[in-house]
Amino acid sequence: INSKLPKVGTTIFTTIGKMAKEHNAVNLSQGFPDFNADPTLLALVQEAISDGHNQYAPMQGLYSLREIIAEKIQSLYGHSYHPESEITITASATQGIFTAISAFVEPRDEVILFKPAYDCYEPAVELCGGIVVPIQLEGTEFKMDWQALKNAIGPRTKMLIINTPHNPTGTILSGADMLQLQAILRDTNIVVVSDEVYEHLVYDGQAHESVAKYQDLAARSILCASFGKTFHVTGWKMGYCAAPQNLMAEFRKIHQYVVFCVNHPMQHGVAQYLKTPEHYLGLHQFYQQKRDYFLSAIQNSRFKFKPCSGTYFQILDYPDITNEPDVAFAERLIKEYRLASIPISVFNLNNEDNKQLRFCFAKTEETLDKAAEILNKI
Amino acid sequence: INSKLPKVGTTIFTTIGKMAKEHNAVNLSQGFPDFNADPTLLALVQEAISDGHNQYAPMQGLYSLREIIAEKIQSLYGHSYHPESEITITASATQGIFTAISAFVEPRDEVILFKPAYDCYEPAVELCGGIVVPIQLEGTEFKMDWQALKNAIGPRTKMLIINTPHNPTGTILSGADMLQLQAILRDTNIVVVSDEVYEHLVYDGQAHESVAKYQDLAARSILCASFGKTFHVTGWKMGYCAAPQNLMAEFRKIHQYVVFCVNHPMQHGVAQYLKTPEHYLGLHQFYQQKRDYFLSAIQNSRFKFKPCSGTYFQILDYPDITNEPDVAFAERLIKEYRLASIPISVFNLNNEDNKQLRFCFAKTEETLDKAAEILNKI
Ligand SMILES: CSCCC(=O)C(=O)O
Ligand SMILES: CSCCC(=O)C(=O)O
Repeated sequence: INSKLPKVGTTIFTTIGKMAKEHNAVNLSQGFPDFNADPTLLALVQEAISDGHNQYAPMQGLYSLREIIAEKIQSLYGHSYHPESEITITASATQGIFTAISAFVEPRDEVILFKPAYDCYEPAVELCGGIVVPIQLEGTEFKMDWQALKNAIGPRTKMLIINTPHNPTGTILSGADMLQLQAILRDTNIVVVSDEVYEHLVYDGQAHESVAKYQDLAARSILCASFGKTFHVTGWKMGYCAAPQNLMAEFRKIHQYVVFCVNHPMQHGVAQYLKTPEHYLGLHQFYQQKRDYFLSAIQNSRFKFKPCSGTYFQILDYPDITNEPDVAFAERLIKEYRLASIPISVFNLNNEDNKQLRFCFAKTEETLDKAAEILNKI
Repeated sequence: INSKLPKVGTTIFTTIGKMAKEHNAVNLSQGFPDFNADPTLLALVQEAISDGHNQYAPMQGLYSLREIIAEKIQSLYGHSYHPESEITITASATQGIFTAISAFVEPRDEVILFKPAYDCYEPAVELCGGIVVPIQLEGTEFKMDWQALKNAIGPRTKMLIINTPHNPTGTILSGADMLQLQAILRDTNIVVVSDEVYEHLVYDGQAHESVAKYQDLAARSILCASFGKTFHVTGWKMGYCAAPQNLMAEFRKIHQYVVFCVNHPMQHGVAQYLKTPEHYLGLHQFYQQKRDYFLSAIQNSRFKFKPCSGTYFQILDYPDITNEPDVAFAERLIKEYRLASIPISVFNLNNEDNKQLRFCFAKTEETLDKAAEILNKI
């Protein structure tokens, strides 16, 4: 048996998560909250189950859910997606991203992405026979390198994958970045996959710059979003994609054979819950408070940081502490100190090691206190 | 934008389902029950939601669920799969089948399957650049053509897809069939994808012949199964795959990037529910009664039939009634008679039309009565 992904092992989240469990570590590695979701949301799904919404949902997703998503996007970002033909519910943003890549990338097509990059993009491209063209973002600011992007674009470039707010770095793209991107892509046929799962987690008064705010970008993009991240239910595996009709038609051809459709009672519950914009509009305040709580608790530690601009991940730099590679240091933190985080090198080009670890602060203050206590000791 | 699946439209289930709704037809088309699941199961999932099992499940699935699945397979079919390395929970059997195909089929690999065939296999093969080698099963018995299979196997054959109980024909493979298959494959490296989603729906005292009953077959097979079909919750989108460790390792490499993991609270509920074998062991009696109820109600109609041996689908032959192609007749049944079914030609090689329609009898007696009344009038 030949492996189609010979370079791929188990994702870092599974590896570190397992190690964290074995060592009973405070777990700030994989991105999920350690508190429960709003009981109102839980009750809505429980009701849908009792009410018998337990058979196949429509392949594209519940119409009522697609409709309220279209309204949300319109009111936040100004772009009108048609719920009938331009929005599809997915079994997680991961499935949306996988399907979007699978729908367009053909053998020898080139796909540009920026490193560090979340780990699900590259294997999906490789599975399609596509070629990943990575651009490493340098420095502690991870600023976009526009010249590098221009140089990377060629006749075989089929797709560009962007991600804002950015996992794992916590940076965001600005309005100026989006306009640059739009201008660079203008005369190309490049399809954009825009991973916006942390759209509601942007801090310090800044705004999320969705592709849906930029007409020319929106016309070539598949916007991928997540309910798991927004509603504290990462285990429900629900998200959605929005794209112009011509792209969405191809997306759905694949989607219908990947999962056919998505969990029905949960779509029902989320459709009701989403009708109240307060259920997501205040989210950035909630998480900014957690970020600030965590950072103020470790301000006297030997770790250095720049507060993240978005996502619920904070990068801590440790070059003043040890010369150990980040994978080794992350392992030692788990085994010796019982604190789990994610080493950044696994997301970098050639696993470049800048002595950085990623900590998830979607945790109770009690958990953040425990983590801070450990970090302050190191 | 180039289409990667230019021949593919919307699945027949979406097309017919939509038409059925528009014409307010009695819907015996898509395979799902029109009654609710066991309240005990619903309560278990609702409890898991309240108890806070709402974050990521492990990538492979909940260990407790994989363990009870291994016990079930061992007790029914005699093969021991290791829950840690040989069983993975999937977001529907469809996702399991898609992932199994994606894990092994490479460009120009040949994949043999028997027609009529359920509609999700071929697009998955084509998406991998594989070549479908179809064998049409002839006659009202749809008997396996072993010589055709031997002829079809060649140096580029990577995979064989089988499906018992068989959708859409309602036939099953016998023990003798499985031994034949095992013998034919013996000296090859062919990987088998075995779609067994209707494993608990085998009638008239016959037994389900799982690949897990045949050691040499089990060693080369990915067994794909469904909780949706077994527990009357097709909308929960949950199933599992079992395979020897070497195949499962490749399967999981892909699975982790297709969906990462599967709905957590539902896995919890199903794991509890599955502990009581009575929750699935009596299922064939339940559905056999429905089959017999439906068939006795239409025994004086002008439709001809042979009672199905498995699945919850019954094929009705109509050559005595009209010469219309089955797609046209199925449409007319919806529009004029308000009864929805699935035309078989869409699953056949070259859409061969044998004047057969498929009716789902996973319905209340009230619904079956309504359908019978219409069928008796035609
Ligand atoms: C899909 S598992 C990883 C969760 C996540 O988004 C992260 O930790 O980065
Ligand atoms: C996944 S939708 C189709 C349901 C089904 O199994 C069938 O009707 O054949």
